[in-house]
Amino acid sequence: MKIQGRPYRTIWPARDGKAVEVIDQTKLPHRFETLRLSTLEEAAHAISSMIVRGAPLIGATAAYGLALALRDDPSDEALDRAHDTLLATRPTAVNLRWALNRVRDAVRNRPRGERAAAAWREAAAICDEDVETCRHIGKHGLKLLREAAAKKHGAPLNILTHCNAGWLACVDWGTALAPIYMAHDESIALHVWVDETRPRNQGASLTAFELSAHGVPHAVIADNAGGHLMQAGRVDLCIVGTDRVTKNGDVANKIGTYLKALAAKDNNVPFYVALPSSTIDWTLLSGDMIPIEFRDEAEVTKVTGRLPDGSIATVAIAPEGSPAANPGFDVTPARLVTGFITERGVCAANEAGLRSLFPEN
Amino acid sequence: MKIQGRPYRTIWPARDGKAVEVIDQTKLPHRFETLRLSTLEEAAHAISSMIVRGAPLIGATAAYGLALALRDDPSDEALDRAHDTLLATRPTAVNLRWALNRVRDAVRNRPRGERAAAAWREAAAICDEDVETCRHIGKHGLKLLREAAAKKHGAPLNILTHCNAGWLACVDWGTALAPIYMAHDESIALHVWVDETRPRNQGASLTAFELSAHGVPHAVIADNAGGHLMQAGRVDLCIVGTDRVTKNGDVANKIGTYLKALAAKDNNVPFYVALPSSTIDWTLLSGDMIPIEFRDEAEVTKVTGRLPDGSIATVAIAPEGSPAANPGFDVTPARLVTGFITERGVCAANEAGLRSLFPEN
Repeated sequence: MKIQGRPYRTIWPARDGKAVEVIDQTKLPHRFETLRLSTLEEAAHAISSMIVRGAPLIGATAAYGLALALRDDPSDEALDRAHDTLLATRPTAVNLRWALNRVRDAVRNRPRGERAAAAWREAAAICDEDVETCRHIGKHGLKLLREAAAKKHGAPLNILTHCNAGWLACVDWGTALAPIYMAHDESIALHVWVDETRPRNQGASLTAFELSAHGVPHAVIADNAGGHLMQAGRVDLCIVGTDRVTKNGDVANKIGTYLKALAAKDNNVPFYVALPSSTIDWTLLSGDMIPIEFRDEAEVTKVTGRLPDGSIATVAIAPEGSPAANPGFDVTPARLVTGFITERGVCAANEAGLRSLFPEN
Repeated sequence: MKIQGRPYRTIWPARDGKAVEVIDQTKLPHRFETLRLSTLEEAAHAISSMIVRGAPLIGATAAYGLALALRDDPSDEALDRAHDTLLATRPTAVNLRWALNRVRDAVRNRPRGERAAAAWREAAAICDEDVETCRHIGKHGLKLLREAAAKKHGAPLNILTHCNAGWLACVDWGTALAPIYMAHDESIALHVWVDETRPRNQGASLTAFELSAHGVPHAVIADNAGGHLMQAGRVDLCIVGTDRVTKNGDVANKIGTYLKALAAKDNNVPFYVALPSSTIDWTLLSGDMIPIEFRDEAEVTKVTGRLPDGSIATVAIAPEGSPAANPGFDVTPARLVTGFITERGVCAANEAGLRSLFPEN
């Protein structure tokens, strides 16, 4: 997508070929800064500190991280160590494991001298494929949006989304936001309710930034507000991303997703989850088996933003000494999900639905 | 309740008898400051700007505001004008109307020369009665907490609350928090999950401040987190306050309450609403008739807190120019409420339940 007219991906090889570059997402929407990742450690830190985030982008960054590690040491031991280091950065998103295994499989049986280059090619392929995958998710979701918009007779279609599942969460296009961009581009009237997504505010910062940059009408809302808006008939459908979908169709996604899915069910609002198939964990039977990451308490007790002079500052909102708890994800049971929007089409949120599109698994 | 060992109410007559004083709740938890309200305008501003908030305290402040207005002008016209000015400050809480009508009825048929003093006495009576009412709510709620704690066999009882329905929302004790204080005081092991309650963070600021000051174990959580904690079996019951209960038992309360009630239902967690009977609106049949206040967008796009040097600052979290929407309340349908905790006991959340305790209405 474009930032001030210039096309960007979220991750790309540096011109000198010695590093990958990424957008520092912890600085958005206040500042647009890019960062070089030259080592395994820098890649791992970028993931754990959420300089890059979003299940697909985490996978892509980890793939490059493995390639960077193999430049320093292409041994089997180094490969396994780098794999484990990167896998430990974030426990919930399964794309991370998927991408790491894919790169490891691609280099494992090669001579050591060829491993780094092969890993780099594989990481690049993962990125290119992610862009294509998201484009297809967008096209399949677009059909749903066209149908929903037709029922609005010209009034804007109101879509609620949680967290950021836009191009910043992927390599380009996004998952949940891809259909929205495509619908907007073909002049379907729409308006997006952007859950701010505490504690890290990826909605208010990243999704609002993306939608602003692309000119998509939207409004930021407190995470508390979506239920009321649904009760008031002001939400036509919800689309969110996901970090892991289990075989039965349960959905791990950013904390708070489950609450919106409950409200959607209670108000007969369709609730879609958009995902690349790399997000499906065929090894887990149900969502209660997904590890839920607990993050730093300070993410809850403090908020970072822009002071009136433009500088970035962090303010404490809770009393000094009050503890906090910070689960990063929750699991939305499949029964609350209207359907999955994948690169191969839309399916029911259950094993039969997933197998109908991905029979090879 | 006590602040650093000194007993406080949230509102009290100034020593010189010329004003009322209140705690400036917009400064908490960062600074403890009190403010004099000497005129109708100052009282109205204190309510609309949320220097004072919480349905019972809004009513008490409005009662004093009417008394202050009558000192300047005890005419019928001034009485009606002051009544209407104060009534317009916040549309959702019905205690405001209840308190204003009560003071107006108490002075209407008196000679003008006696009106201001009579209104002052009535406001003071409303405050004293509110303290007693909350004490009774506490005692009735305490029985529920004792029963729930007995099932925990010594493990802490985990209670989730939303917004602030503590003593800062009332004159003393609180509604939802009164039973918690009493249970803590009789050494029942408990732990409170404090929803931060965006956009104004009354949970992270006021409830956490109250619980810290009283030594009640607690943890602040993002509003998004409660659903996951319930799924994980880490919430034994919920207690919240309310701004208006309609005849059928529907509950208006701070935005986001509905989402927690949905999650409680989905996980078989009891969901109680604590209220003084002045919060019951016998004139409305159901919650869809309650006016929902929309507040300033800046409450969503900006967050106020404490900088590392202790000064208070406001930071913007959304991109410049991104619009926001800010509904202040939502309505939890009676079907999601386990019971009401009132000053006369606990009842079912429906008209029969309410009438069983308040047959005079």
